[in-house]
Amino acid sequence: MFHVGSRSTVDLEEEITPEEDIVKSRLKEIPHNEKLLSLKYESLDYDNSENQLFLEEERRMSHMGFRCLEIRRWVICGLIGFLTGLIACLIDIAVEELAGYKYSAVKQNIEKFTEFGGLSISLILWAALNSAFVMVGAIAVAFFEPIAAGSGIPQIKCYLNGVKIPCVVRLKTLAIKVFGVICSVAGGLAVGKEGPMIHSGAVVAAGVSQGRSTSLKKDFKIFEYFRRDTEKRDFVSAGAAAGVSAAFGAPVGGVLFSLEEGASFWNQMLTWRIFFASMISTFTLNFFLSIYHGKPGELSSPGLINFGRFDSDVSSYIPFESFLFFPYYFPGGMLGALFNVINYWLTIFRIRYIHRPCLQVMEAMLVAAVTATVAFAMIYFSNDCQPLGQDSTEEYPLQLFCADGEYNSMATAFFNTPERSVRSLFHNPPGSYNPLTLGVFTLVYFVLAVWTYGLTVSAGVFIPSLLIGAAWGRLFGILLSTITSSQSVSIWADPGKYALIGAAAQLGGIVRMTLSLTVIMVEATGNVTYGFPIMLVLMTAKIVGDYFIEGLYDIHIKLQSVPFLHWDAPPTSHWLTAREVMSSPVTCFNRVERVGRIVDVLSNTSTNHNGFPVVAHTTENEEPGKICGLILRSQLIVLLKHKVFVERASSRLSQRRLQLKDFRDAYPRFPPIQSIHVSQDERECMMDLNEFMNPTPYTVPQETSLPRVFKLFRALGLRHLVVVDDENRVVGLVTRKDLARYHLGKDGLEELQLAQT
Amino acid sequence: MFHVGSRSTVDLEEEITPEEDIVKSRLKEIPHNEKLLSLKYESLDYDNSENQLFLEEERRMSHMGFRCLEIRRWVICGLIGFLTGLIACLIDIAVEELAGYKYSAVKQNIEKFTEFGGLSISLILWAALNSAFVMVGAIAVAFFEPIAAGSGIPQIKCYLNGVKIPCVVRLKTLAIKVFGVICSVAGGLAVGKEGPMIHSGAVVAAGVSQGRSTSLKKDFKIFEYFRRDTEKRDFVSAGAAAGVSAAFGAPVGGVLFSLEEGASFWNQMLTWRIFFASMISTFTLNFFLSIYHGKPGELSSPGLINFGRFDSDVSSYIPFESFLFFPYYFPGGMLGALFNVINYWLTIFRIRYIHRPCLQVMEAMLVAAVTATVAFAMIYFSNDCQPLGQDSTEEYPLQLFCADGEYNSMATAFFNTPERSVRSLFHNPPGSYNPLTLGVFTLVYFVLAVWTYGLTVSAGVFIPSLLIGAAWGRLFGILLSTITSSQSVSIWADPGKYALIGAAAQLGGIVRMTLSLTVIMVEATGNVTYGFPIMLVLMTAKIVGDYFIEGLYDIHIKLQSVPFLHWDAPPTSHWLTAREVMSSPVTCFNRVERVGRIVDVLSNTSTNHNGFPVVAHTTENEEPGKICGLILRSQLIVLLKHKVFVERASSRLSQRRLQLKDFRDAYPRFPPIQSIHVSQDERECMMDLNEFMNPTPYTVPQETSLPRVFKLFRALGLRHLVVVDDENRVVGLVTRKDLARYHLGKDGLEELQLAQT
Repeated sequence: MFHVGSRSTVDLEEEITPEEDIVKSRLKEIPHNEKLLSLKYESLDYDNSENQLFLEEERRMSHMGFRCLEIRRWVICGLIGFLTGLIACLIDIAVEELAGYKYSAVKQNIEKFTEFGGLSISLILWAALNSAFVMVGAIAVAFFEPIAAGSGIPQIKCYLNGVKIPCVVRLKTLAIKVFGVICSVAGGLAVGKEGPMIHSGAVVAAGVSQGRSTSLKKDFKIFEYFRRDTEKRDFVSAGAAAGVSAAFGAPVGGVLFSLEEGASFWNQMLTWRIFFASMISTFTLNFFLSIYHGKPGELSSPGLINFGRFDSDVSSYIPFESFLFFPYYFPGGMLGALFNVINYWLTIFRIRYIHRPCLQVMEAMLVAAVTATVAFAMIYFSNDCQPLGQDSTEEYPLQLFCADGEYNSMATAFFNTPERSVRSLFHNPPGSYNPLTLGVFTLVYFVLAVWTYGLTVSAGVFIPSLLIGAAWGRLFGILLSTITSSQSVSIWADPGKYALIGAAAQLGGIVRMTLSLTVIMVEATGNVTYGFPIMLVLMTAKIVGDYFIEGLYDIHIKLQSVPFLHWDAPPTSHWLTAREVMSSPVTCFNRVERVGRIVDVLSNTSTNHNGFPVVAHTTENEEPGKICGLILRSQLIVLLKHKVFVERASSRLSQRRLQLKDFRDAYPRFPPIQSIHVSQDERECMMDLNEFMNPTPYTVPQETSLPRVFKLFRALGLRHLVVVDDENRVVGLVTRKDLARYHLGKDGLEELQLAQT
Repeated sequence: MFHVGSRSTVDLEEEITPEEDIVKSRLKEIPHNEKLLSLKYESLDYDNSENQLFLEEERRMSHMGFRCLEIRRWVICGLIGFLTGLIACLIDIAVEELAGYKYSAVKQNIEKFTEFGGLSISLILWAALNSAFVMVGAIAVAFFEPIAAGSGIPQIKCYLNGVKIPCVVRLKTLAIKVFGVICSVAGGLAVGKEGPMIHSGAVVAAGVSQGRSTSLKKDFKIFEYFRRDTEKRDFVSAGAAAGVSAAFGAPVGGVLFSLEEGASFWNQMLTWRIFFASMISTFTLNFFLSIYHGKPGELSSPGLINFGRFDSDVSSYIPFESFLFFPYYFPGGMLGALFNVINYWLTIFRIRYIHRPCLQVMEAMLVAAVTATVAFAMIYFSNDCQPLGQDSTEEYPLQLFCADGEYNSMATAFFNTPERSVRSLFHNPPGSYNPLTLGVFTLVYFVLAVWTYGLTVSAGVFIPSLLIGAAWGRLFGILLSTITSSQSVSIWADPGKYALIGAAAQLGGIVRMTLSLTVIMVEATGNVTYGFPIMLVLMTAKIVGDYFIEGLYDIHIKLQSVPFLHWDAPPTSHWLTAREVMSSPVTCFNRVERVGRIVDVLSNTSTNHNGFPVVAHTTENEEPGKICGLILRSQLIVLLKHKVFVERASSRLSQRRLQLKDFRDAYPRFPPIQSIHVSQDERECMMDLNEFMNPTPYTVPQETSLPRVFKLFRALGLRHLVVVDDENRVVGLVTRKDLARYHLGKDGLEELQLAQT
């Protein structure tokens, strides 16, 4: 969680004009921060800086060299898949063991007290166990790595989009994430362990591809070529895909997820590598889980969640039924939107009032205790007893007050990990649940899931969404079969099918993913037959849901004021041109610049620019200079650190020349300017930027329309786009925040406020 | 087929310098034309010309207007899917009926003559029927629309890549294509009906999205907004995907095919629409076929080819077997490469010697007759008799010389449509074929398939490839089971599994598609279990195959000298800069230009430029002018046609102003300059280009490296990229051919020659 205050950029200005005053006062009225755009997020450089050093290196490299690089990329992707699969395996086994221990203990306790009375002791035991697990997880997240909270999918979306979220791909984040998700699932919260796998995969990828860990201060001196944002992003895409693949057993879905959320430029080889990582990941998980389950070689669990086999007999599927699923198309979108609206207000409440770590831990514990209590109450007051069959999938059937040989049906939904509950709803034979049980369960679980998402614990929202949807889907199926039972029993016989469609509708209504979610659902069910209705349901859920509010991930991205770039510029933005959008005046450097000026500019915290056009003549006289390159803050920092000054060139003959390696060694944590000591003498030296600047930055004329600028920026993954006049003189600079600022509101184009938070 | 001569651009130059002379003489030595780049192919404009008219229109449009456009796009995609499905259905039924008639007739005849002798009459009947069908199909293709030959996949790849192949998306092409493919499959050639579906879908998309047919001279006055290359391309992607989807029952595979082959810029909404079209297409086909088969509602044939259900019992799949499939990984690539090499030489032979339509028809007839003869001989001399079981999938079992209750095994492979033969190889129980039958069949069918691809008939290469692969795969499976029978019979029991892997390996070795092919295969088998081995096999096939020669489609694209842009610039091309790559000097126009000069420039057939930078001052004095826009030939043509001259501006007050509609009406077949009459008086008039030119063309400085230019060009789908100096003066123009010219040969970077053919 990032804590976002309300200090806006205008605070920094000395004189506040009346107009700005109005802005400021209006700003205070705005109760939350999705109308702001934070300036604290930096962008990633997905455009290579093709400076002389880079070109020299590339030109030195032979054809064979490029082939070796390619092989190395494949090896890395294989490793990413393998490690991601291992982590998924670890999470699965840990959760299985811990939850198994917990449920056995509680079950024994309940059985002990059912006859004698005193079930309140069981309740306390259950609640205490849950709270304890959750407390440990929440403390780890809240105190050690707040970025590990939630599913991590919004953060990875941002990363792939080109926004640098601090600490998002660090080893520590991974450790806390894995530990946290084990605790929160074992703690019985209404969460899944699938979402965090995507984040975990991304961290693994970022780590492996760099061949070192800055946290552990260990450099393996391998894969040095890949130490730049462009290459790293490609591997992180592969990691995210491997994560999805391990979570749902859906390698193709994983690839599509990565592409849908991240990659704007599709490259065949890259896609193929991502697919390879995904395949390895699901295979690894499957393989190790099969050993754990004692049946090595039986690859029956390709993912963390397994929907179980749906009847693949094609003739049982009636096409017209897809149209009869019609009633489902709307509830999915609307219930999803309702979920998002409530969670949105809850998140704003949390941002305002629950921002101290200990409060966050307490809230998480409270939710855990309430979840246990509610579940207990529901089971206690339910009188839906079902006969305990031979083929029952229940691992912990609770008899409670039922007759011998029967079990409490409500308990199958609550007294279980959510994954198992979903599977029960999909596959238990007709009649396993009575409608009242399902109705109450839907309602209660909906509330719990909404409350839970956004807590300071590592947890995913996929499984709870599926569970809610499966519950109301099955309920609907039962009702429908009651109504139509007179006509055609056979068609409506299987409520599990409705549970599946309901689950898809609910999940689609919440996250609004499209193609990738369809494929994930199809792969998870292992049956392509349901593809068509699932697609229709997801599409309707998206259209209906978008009418009310955005998807859950987008809401959280917005609430964190991230300058996220969508696929296209808002359609009505042709009015705007680069001239209106750009920031100006621009701080430029000369080709040969005085060290003192560079240090001053870099130290100026009020501007804190990251890219500087290099111009042909001095900017001392007001007139802007002709563009001849672009240099980044990070490059200047390395130059200053190595004291690459013109005056030292003679003495440098003995020293070695600065190489690309020096930049790569400093990547990605370039030291701050404050840590670099520059003496007064050195300030008077000159620095020659020619060799290090990117001599051919992309430029656009001032009259270019916003959609055109946007397209260029997005397609090439730019960080800085220089705006020039007809004389090729620098007049402005367009960065991510300049573009992300415009969005489509209710009344047309709106502009977000910039904030320094 | 395009006939490519050997006249190179250098012929056009007046003075031939010694250096050029060398080039010219070397050119004559080059025996074939993959070392050439044809100049006759124009590019498509996938970058919108954002001129004043366009901006005004966009600005006038409300938010609601954009939403309506979006809805219209969905409707069009639905229509595309529906019509593509219908066409697939038509092809399937026609082939089924015709082939059914043919096989029954021949079977009856054979049965009649088996006892009495005189089977040569049967042979003649069979060969004659085949030749007759093929003749009709070949005549239609060769005489009426040569572009309809082959599978059309290379042409669609080129179209999506941005190359304008003449007539490729016309209604006439579609008609001939559909008719041709029915004839060639019914004629018993070693071809499939799947590949042409992709082309058919693309034509449907191009037609529907434009809301008119120029061939039929019918304008429905709808969808006028979509009359430009950018929008049309998006729909053609959807059409190609719908085609794949209908052919293989693989909607996701279809989407991936479109993306892998075409789209460089991934857009979420577009992808989702493409998916929608794919889904509708497979659903439509399935629905109508179910009615045809007399079981309405039983959706058991999602595609033209149906691999049948593979055992989906997961436990029967042994993971270690994927590694034991290892021996398959190499033959696939090598046999694929062999196929491609032979076909490559054959194609060169055809380009040289068989370019007259009647010769082409005769060759096709010859192949048809030979196919029948060879098949007959094989069946005749085979003595592999198999008992006729209850669950046999054979529709026309030939008894021939077998005992009663038995059938000839060789006939199941030859006396059948290739689709059925593939299915038999996948699913017939172990022991249905003896190894010798399979070995001989593989060899013979390989030769026939190589010979057939490239004939002047509409036909796909997917099914013959699968058939060859399935045959040797099954053979391999049988041999393996013989060797290992002592150890573990159960694992190796099913040779059908090996047939599937072999089929994938062979197809992958020939076409070298990757992700999309994996998904298509998985969707066609309806079983995700084989995903992992299929992926490994395809990957190895690609790597091994690429070592020898390119994929089949790429070979044909190269042999037609198409300026195709690959994903990335060649890796070793950092040496080159825009200065070396660009064409110069550039023909520029002034903002207000004399009509006479425009007409002269446009009429100059030796240059035949399509885009002209508009510069600030006259270019009469040698110095290049400052860039202020870019105007296209097509725009100038429309302006000339409507006589939009400055001198007429006063009289134009009464006339209506030129609108975007006028450009759209002329799209895509702009009249040639010769058809526009400009009087001597009018030649002296002036034309104001300000309103019509694109005022913000993308530019790059001269020092930009080739990979950087390439990236910009490819990511944005450009047609012209202006190269400027520091003063923003036009110094060159980069077009598709300038970039496509460089490719990686055996000895590093090679440069292709440009030819006017």
